[in-house]
Amino acid sequence: MSVEGLSINFATLRQGGSFGAIVDACLAEGVTAISPWREYVGDLAEATRIVALNGLRVTGHCRGGFFPAADAQGRLAALEANRRAVDEAAALGAACLVMVVGGLPPGSRDLPGARAMVADGMAELLPYARAAGVPLAIEPLHPTYAADRACINTLKQSLDLCDELGSGVGVAIDVYHVWWDPELEAQIERAGRGGRILAHHVCDWLVPTTDPLNDRGMMGDGVIDLRRFRALIETAGFHGPQEVEIFSTRWGTRPIGEVVRTCVERYRTVC
Amino acid sequence: MSVEGLSINFATLRQGGSFGAIVDACLAEGVTAISPWREYVGDLAEATRIVALNGLRVTGHCRGGFFPAADAQGRLAALEANRRAVDEAAALGAACLVMVVGGLPPGSRDLPGARAMVADGMAELLPYARAAGVPLAIEPLHPTYAADRACINTLKQSLDLCDELGSGVGVAIDVYHVWWDPELEAQIERAGRGGRILAHHVCDWLVPTTDPLNDRGMMGDGVIDLRRFRALIETAGFHGPQEVEIFSTRWGTRPIGEVVRTCVERYRTVC
Repeated sequence: MSVEGLSINFATLRQGGSFGAIVDACLAEGVTAISPWREYVGDLAEATRIVALNGLRVTGHCRGGFFPAADAQGRLAALEANRRAVDEAAALGAACLVMVVGGLPPGSRDLPGARAMVADGMAELLPYARAAGVPLAIEPLHPTYAADRACINTLKQSLDLCDELGSGVGVAIDVYHVWWDPELEAQIERAGRGGRILAHHVCDWLVPTTDPLNDRGMMGDGVIDLRRFRALIETAGFHGPQEVEIFSTRWGTRPIGEVVRTCVERYRTVC
Repeated sequence: MSVEGLSINFATLRQGGSFGAIVDACLAEGVTAISPWREYVGDLAEATRIVALNGLRVTGHCRGGFFPAADAQGRLAALEANRRAVDEAAALGAACLVMVVGGLPPGSRDLPGARAMVADGMAELLPYARAAGVPLAIEPLHPTYAADRACINTLKQSLDLCDELGSGVGVAIDVYHVWWDPELEAQIERAGRGGRILAHHVCDWLVPTTDPLNDRGMMGDGVIDLRRFRALIETAGFHGPQEVEIFSTRWGTRPIGEVVRTCVERYRTVC
């Protein structure tokens, strides 16, 4: 029996190793919506075949982005990598390409400059993505990642960029990255009004958090009010699956079946 | 010879152990401005005597805050602790009492509720602080501390609260906590316009950051554009000392004289 409304992001199941093995682990627990990362795709034709054969819903493809670079050559290479990511997302029938936009180029302290490179890169990529029918989902990352992963750090900043860019672009809202934002309600409402919500990622914020990257929590184990969050998102008009994305050394080393079962159980009880 | 424009926060020199020992280490390198933490004050009369005897400038006293609590009794206890912190700040002649406002009460997921408790607590404390002549400096903390240390996480949020509260309250701007903020320039300008800038703390953001609390960097070792930051603050009208506050296991275990010398050298070369 299929678990309605739940998607699992491959970052949660890194111990699975391959595209097919991760899909099998999801299907074994009735999870039929997934969100892969590029490094797990391997043979794209084979991955596409697995998706079609099992009637999987692909709630997003991870990831595009990382636009800022130290020189023009680096920025061109990033743009080319993004076009390949768009191609993959299109082949997989993904609902969106998730954009982790990138941080400071090596050696740089120029955050406004990096942000300008992101805006430029998005504008250059967008026509290609529109032509491929792949919406670009800007994912604002928690400010703790501003230097090395994404210099877009709030929903407001993301939506301001969406407004500049026009159609074909929206936001991936991950509770981990934005739960602290004093403008959360207003900006989720704004995102919904503009039809900009493309994905809703869930996990939890642990207290204490011992590692800035790989200590995210299973839903229910932390302090995020997930039900209130879901209500805000649904009131704003987004009713797509909640996608579980947990970067965690702890969960990444447990048996994969146990992790998927726990995701399903927590999805049913606390999300 | 005195080092003009530099203050050292006692959190940077935890290895010093006592109020007198930390002051001695500062004076040995010509640093005559300090910002103590309450746990290092010990005998208040003795600390006050040391300050007066050496003509020290106290750029802030750390800390008040931690208003949210699970019940009314807890909130009353917090308010009483804050009054004692105001008394200490007044006795030491501190330029402000730094407010680390507190996060979620144990077991709570109600962030808006915690923020309301902070606003209430500040409003209750303020008349006492005004009467004592001690400005309260709200320190917005990096969003990574929203759950367990401070649910005030941006300058905008801090200044909105200042506007509600009226006179006798402002902000302590720590580069570590706000450097990522897309609204940094606008909000620093706003803070200056309202005469709300009470302190300017410096350190640096390391890449990678391995520990959310105790891996802050010495100025120059990270990615924050400290000179641009200083220019923003000075353009906004604040010309008080830059106060070095580095929570760091690394620096906290080096010889204290070496740490103070490094602060002075970096202050002169990169701040």
